[in-house]
Amino acid sequence: MDLIRRGSRLLGRQASSSTKKQRIVIIGSGWAGFTFLQRLDARQYEVFVISPRSYFVFTPLLAGTAVGTLEFRCALESVRATRKCHFHEAWAESIDFDKREVTCSDAMKAVGDARTFAVPYDQLILAPGSYSNTFDIPGVHEHAHFLKSVEDARRIRNRVLACFEQASSPTTTAEERARLLTFCIVGGGPTGVEFAAELHDLVAKNLNKLYPDLAHLVKIEIFDIAESILVSFDKKLASYAQARFARDGIKVHTKQSPKRVLADRLVFTEDPKDAVGDLQDKPYGMLVWSTGLMASPLVQLLGKEGLIDVDDKTHALLTNGQLQVLHNGLPRKEVYALGDCATIQGQILPATAQVASQKGQYLASILNTRKIADFKFVYRGSMAFLGGGAAIVDASQAKNGPRISGRVAYIMWKTAYLTMTVSWRNKVLIPTYWLLNAIFGRDINRF
Amino acid sequence: MDLIRRGSRLLGRQASSSTKKQRIVIIGSGWAGFTFLQRLDARQYEVFVISPRSYFVFTPLLAGTAVGTLEFRCALESVRATRKCHFHEAWAESIDFDKREVTCSDAMKAVGDARTFAVPYDQLILAPGSYSNTFDIPGVHEHAHFLKSVEDARRIRNRVLACFEQASSPTTTAEERARLLTFCIVGGGPTGVEFAAELHDLVAKNLNKLYPDLAHLVKIEIFDIAESILVSFDKKLASYAQARFARDGIKVHTKQSPKRVLADRLVFTEDPKDAVGDLQDKPYGMLVWSTGLMASPLVQLLGKEGLIDVDDKTHALLTNGQLQVLHNGLPRKEVYALGDCATIQGQILPATAQVASQKGQYLASILNTRKIADFKFVYRGSMAFLGGGAAIVDASQAKNGPRISGRVAYIMWKTAYLTMTVSWRNKVLIPTYWLLNAIFGRDINRF
Repeated sequence: MDLIRRGSRLLGRQASSSTKKQRIVIIGSGWAGFTFLQRLDARQYEVFVISPRSYFVFTPLLAGTAVGTLEFRCALESVRATRKCHFHEAWAESIDFDKREVTCSDAMKAVGDARTFAVPYDQLILAPGSYSNTFDIPGVHEHAHFLKSVEDARRIRNRVLACFEQASSPTTTAEERARLLTFCIVGGGPTGVEFAAELHDLVAKNLNKLYPDLAHLVKIEIFDIAESILVSFDKKLASYAQARFARDGIKVHTKQSPKRVLADRLVFTEDPKDAVGDLQDKPYGMLVWSTGLMASPLVQLLGKEGLIDVDDKTHALLTNGQLQVLHNGLPRKEVYALGDCATIQGQILPATAQVASQKGQYLASILNTRKIADFKFVYRGSMAFLGGGAAIVDASQAKNGPRISGRVAYIMWKTAYLTMTVSWRNKVLIPTYWLLNAIFGRDINRF
Repeated sequence: MDLIRRGSRLLGRQASSSTKKQRIVIIGSGWAGFTFLQRLDARQYEVFVISPRSYFVFTPLLAGTAVGTLEFRCALESVRATRKCHFHEAWAESIDFDKREVTCSDAMKAVGDARTFAVPYDQLILAPGSYSNTFDIPGVHEHAHFLKSVEDARRIRNRVLACFEQASSPTTTAEERARLLTFCIVGGGPTGVEFAAELHDLVAKNLNKLYPDLAHLVKIEIFDIAESILVSFDKKLASYAQARFARDGIKVHTKQSPKRVLADRLVFTEDPKDAVGDLQDKPYGMLVWSTGLMASPLVQLLGKEGLIDVDDKTHALLTNGQLQVLHNGLPRKEVYALGDCATIQGQILPATAQVASQKGQYLASILNTRKIADFKFVYRGSMAFLGGGAAIVDASQAKNGPRISGRVAYIMWKTAYLTMTVSWRNKVLIPTYWLLNAIFGRDINRF
């Protein structure tokens, strides 16, 4: 308690010493929060960002960094380097909407030692994002790799390379070798598909030369509960992807339900409803889990305590068309929610980077200009990289939007992400790495 | 035992299937082993490399990577990517000189699960390097950071940035903040000095802008038992370095003896001989230990079992002028030792990268041409980076060798290391990062 008060006083003093600008507190540094920060006119406000990560992750490049197509830092943008805000590396633990105060716990301290402090706000931007959903399947947290953070990507890169090194050891049996070189991906959405494609390219272009005796043993297998991979895409494009994967030797198991993840194998069944049905085993060297999203602890708490209305099905925070959160159906005018944690009442939009970043842009322009307008989502199409210089671009839901596959789509995919990349530093680094890897191959050093 | 035999058989089979080339086994992938590998005509031999690390570390750049001047991978060169050898990620545990066989344990397995295998050789190159010497001072292994491997550099970079982030937390007291921003370096040799200089530049050029309230609290302090830092350098240059550090606010404590390292402070005394003398405390946020080297476990074992003669003082393996190891004063003609682990009988050379790499070059040319000649060391001078665009270059021990300090030395330092860098990949990446960091500042993202 003493510390909370000390914290509040400290931050209160800082605020009063400035020129009485309104204080905006942003919770989160992902697509929604960081895009909002970038677009906000920081001269008009005193801005605080609270996030356990001091950087933004450009998530579409994460699958590539996980196999060394790009370096990890190419996908990161520092919050502090924007020079637009105060920053606290902390978790937002709870919010007092009457006192207009966020209670935070220091993310830098060891868990038992965590100390809390309070940050008062005039306007609050809730953008804490979401967690990976394990659907309570046992063993996922212990043994699977997620692909949501840069730490995840780093662990995956090290694990893939370790599997090859271990497989090449003279003490490894043939059976063990086959297991080590089997890579399972649970979830056939864009993230899982792009990771499978990136991994395939790493093996087909680089590791085949460095481990000539092993490359032919590699198996990449995708498991999905649906009837096809990439269900959010146009059907023709999804079929194109599946055919391409079949040609490249990436096996796709559809209508398969994972039941349990063990340290060295995945247990799954064809009948998702019958837990005691025919269980099958798939021994693996590494398993990536990219199935779906769930609400973060803060969002769960806000919903459970009835402080913000939530969607019955997704548990996302409900907002009005101006992204103000609802409480008993009425807006809290100084609290906004955007990104994966939020949904506009009566409007179903996917929990994607595109929606999050458009909401961030919209809200920044509202707060910059103080005009009132409702958020309108403009669908700009979806893309997925398929490996071997091919991709799919699906704008079929947009007006006159095309469906494109193959090399042209691949060039669009590369150009789009290079254009969207935030900093000039990364706009130089990304093509440099693309070029170096094309000439010399990906860097396979593991540390 | 079964596994050992299986291992031997497996590797024996591989050997017999080739065209009966002589087999060279290299233990180690550092300056000596990797330089030898690079220069060896691999068409004449069947080459095996045994090392717990699958890459070579370009050590002079390590201090820079520890603060983000360069990325870690700029200092690494993959052994496999040379495409000149078979590679085992393993520890060499023991050597049977009669059977001409190295027993290895798999470095990829968990400790309890380590499995051994044997690798027969016709010629053996011993280059396992050395370990950091803690001089049995309590707490060094637990709390200090070494700066010998890329993992060390990565931990240091994360720790420095974490200290700043922690210091900026509203829950951190003024006393804690002062401690977190004190960085101690024990050992005033080139590694310690260059790390201090790199850290100073990181703070003075980048972190001062991103943490404007903290930069003035930073303290960088070097502790050395000698009367000066850089004792291996010409005295005038060492004084120049010390004066420059004084100007930059880097404090140098000479004639100080560390007694104990605790989690948050260094205990030291002015009188190295008197353990119960006046003990002083220096609270720190991070401590780097770069004092000296000691023999690796393999080298200790070979000496203890009397299999190779060792130097009484340094415990290094003794060789003749052709780098063949000595046993009871006589050479084992098919076993060579070079790098930090070895010393030529009656010839005192420092344990430096320069000596190791020249020995590697010499031995490769001997084995390529099968001519007989003694190794001759050619002293090419020493360099140290001092921060703020200055360095020292000391060639005063070479014939007509100059002593140079300041900006000219700095340009020589940069040029020399860029020239010495092994791969074209890194010859492109290193200047790219130098340029990007000069324009945009170092990357401060921590993960």
